[in-house]
Amino acid sequence: MVENFAAKLNEYAELLIKVGMNLQKGQTAIIRPSVDCAEFARMLVENAYKAGARDVIVEWSDTKMDRLRYMYAEDQVFDEVRDYTVAKYAYLESVRAATLGVSMPDPDAMLGVDPVRATRAQRALGAKIANYRKLQTSGGWQWCGACYVSPAWAKKVFPELAEDEAVDKLWDAVFSAVCVTGDGTSVEKWREKTAKGKARIAKLDEYNFKYLHYKNSIGTDVMVELPENHYWAGCAEKTDEGISFVPNVPTEEVFTVPKRDGVNGTLVSALPLNARGGTIENFRFVLKDGKIVEATAEKGEDILLSMLDTDEGARYLGEAALVAYDSPISNLGILFHNTLFDENVACHFAFGRCYPCVKGAEKLPAEEQLKLGMNQSLIHCDFMIGTPDLSITGIKADGTKIPVFVDGNFAF
Amino acid sequence: MVENFAAKLNEYAELLIKVGMNLQKGQTAIIRPSVDCAEFARMLVENAYKAGARDVIVEWSDTKMDRLRYMYAEDQVFDEVRDYTVAKYAYLESVRAATLGVSMPDPDAMLGVDPVRATRAQRALGAKIANYRKLQTSGGWQWCGACYVSPAWAKKVFPELAEDEAVDKLWDAVFSAVCVTGDGTSVEKWREKTAKGKARIAKLDEYNFKYLHYKNSIGTDVMVELPENHYWAGCAEKTDEGISFVPNVPTEEVFTVPKRDGVNGTLVSALPLNARGGTIENFRFVLKDGKIVEATAEKGEDILLSMLDTDEGARYLGEAALVAYDSPISNLGILFHNTLFDENVACHFAFGRCYPCVKGAEKLPAEEQLKLGMNQSLIHCDFMIGTPDLSITGIKADGTKIPVFVDGNFAF
Repeated sequence: MVENFAAKLNEYAELLIKVGMNLQKGQTAIIRPSVDCAEFARMLVENAYKAGARDVIVEWSDTKMDRLRYMYAEDQVFDEVRDYTVAKYAYLESVRAATLGVSMPDPDAMLGVDPVRATRAQRALGAKIANYRKLQTSGGWQWCGACYVSPAWAKKVFPELAEDEAVDKLWDAVFSAVCVTGDGTSVEKWREKTAKGKARIAKLDEYNFKYLHYKNSIGTDVMVELPENHYWAGCAEKTDEGISFVPNVPTEEVFTVPKRDGVNGTLVSALPLNARGGTIENFRFVLKDGKIVEATAEKGEDILLSMLDTDEGARYLGEAALVAYDSPISNLGILFHNTLFDENVACHFAFGRCYPCVKGAEKLPAEEQLKLGMNQSLIHCDFMIGTPDLSITGIKADGTKIPVFVDGNFAF
Repeated sequence: MVENFAAKLNEYAELLIKVGMNLQKGQTAIIRPSVDCAEFARMLVENAYKAGARDVIVEWSDTKMDRLRYMYAEDQVFDEVRDYTVAKYAYLESVRAATLGVSMPDPDAMLGVDPVRATRAQRALGAKIANYRKLQTSGGWQWCGACYVSPAWAKKVFPELAEDEAVDKLWDAVFSAVCVTGDGTSVEKWREKTAKGKARIAKLDEYNFKYLHYKNSIGTDVMVELPENHYWAGCAEKTDEGISFVPNVPTEEVFTVPKRDGVNGTLVSALPLNARGGTIENFRFVLKDGKIVEATAEKGEDILLSMLDTDEGARYLGEAALVAYDSPISNLGILFHNTLFDENVACHFAFGRCYPCVKGAEKLPAEEQLKLGMNQSLIHCDFMIGTPDLSITGIKADGTKIPVFVDGNFAF
């Protein structure tokens, strides 16, 4: 039994509505919960209305239904995007609906399912709602993603425990990672946490590096160019209207955008990647002028290649994120098999669509952003490369070298 | 514990897909389950794909979320129907998607909620999708409604039992009502049942009554005119393409359409009516030239009046249904507090939209149907009037009188 579970769960719901989404009075919200956490979903919706939501649109999801569809539906449906789906995104865009996704990770849910079907479905949808996604990641409205513990996830993380024990232990870890103790102080804790992260970001912006050179003992050795006028982001973000929100709960990262054609060298994965319901292990990329020209994996290579083949931009990087190896989440010593958590234990990159961290370029059309070195793609996928011995050296335009990471942790 | 529960549940799922919807190879299905029966919903979807569905669209519902919305959302939203909702119905219409709704009744879910908000939401939606609904009830595609046992429903039916026992006992009753025994014979049993019902319908059509005179000891005394060229339906129906399906599982009724302005007298409820999440008890209608000119209820009168005020047609009758008092479901001796079941224990009428049981008029525009005496409305609500002493006398155009019901049961 997790001590004080009901109080913690409600505090978690409140945190996601008030800090994650920071839902505003009179705003419409869309909440996407799994059907397997219906009771928690109702807590979220009640908290959203109590925060003054005009209306809450609930869009239930179920990985097991997705699996049935990928297995059995007529092949053609995976290239179809129906008008009503596009119309729904148009509506959400028109009212600037704040969004909250709550997934119940099931790392092995798609074992044995053809990953190409998921890729096709994602590509078809991505093409139709590119503008919606662009607005979302450039200040159009608040958005937040979080997780709810599923038995399958808990057993993946703690295979040696009985299911009940595994679920309880994972909840303890999740509550710890999101600073929820059940005493109602998490909203305040997140304010302090955010202030600390913002100070680090100010320092990185001040250095204004031209390159970052990553190196460790398992084979990563890569020179990453940063575009002119790039900036660092993370912790909390702000909408165009100045509303602060936290896109990922938990979050420990600060990140910026690599220059699309300015990455050269080798990247070696430090953690498995769970994507499309499968696991990709021990993979390695060789990059030349920004492009992933070689990609190999000991496990799940078919999934990895299917993702990289989504479109032209899927083989270029869109995010460079710094996370101290002794971050609070890392210190839990748990491999979560879930990006939302594991991206907070190690430095990482993403291949695919960039976060548009270039001053004044956030809302430019895709082709303009591309010219500035900001990668475009229908997908965006984080992968971890941080190790305890990772070093990152910042190189300024005048050639000055400044240690950014030493032995896996921030040098400042 | 319900004996052999898993096998019965899967047989129930198969029955709903194969007999209820009679889903065709290559057809798209839309299934609307409650989030609280996710495991059963997955059985339904798997059965649908195994029956050859092209695609299965799952639209989850949750009464508790509906309640939160009715309580807290901004008032204006209940008059809004969003374009994406209308577009979804347009898509379903364009592919003639077979539909299956599985509700988990919770008779008291809306206690304390303003019934007018639900009425407004229903009216707003009904006005936008009138054509979809018309096609559905006139052979456009197969549709089916069924129930899944919820603890709240079970406790309402068996308040004296512990929740677990109540759930088990209600499942036993439901399986018995739908002829599911777990041995895989229910599909065959439904074929026999349908043949028997069809024979009774043939007889009623042959009599071609002009009036039905209802009378019993609790105050019902009403003369119901039937329109020219009316016919009787029930058990299984057929789409325009000749696909047989069963709109309600279970079903024991045969029904036709009353002439809109041809009903005079008094109707007294024989069972409580659960609607809009509340309960309406001991109600009575006085009808003059088809219109409900007086409506009173000992309990839930506000809900009843709100429904009758939905539109002009809500105060006229749209269905006259015959059910023997000793029907298999009636013989269970259970008040289900749910129309899908309770409508199969007693003769009933519906106020609101008609089932268009007039030869050749099924697809006429609303105004043409109205001229033929076929009532139009955004709502359709069944209410029970059958008692053990109900008599119904059929009167032919030439004045010949033929007993249809004697002491609550069919006279033939």
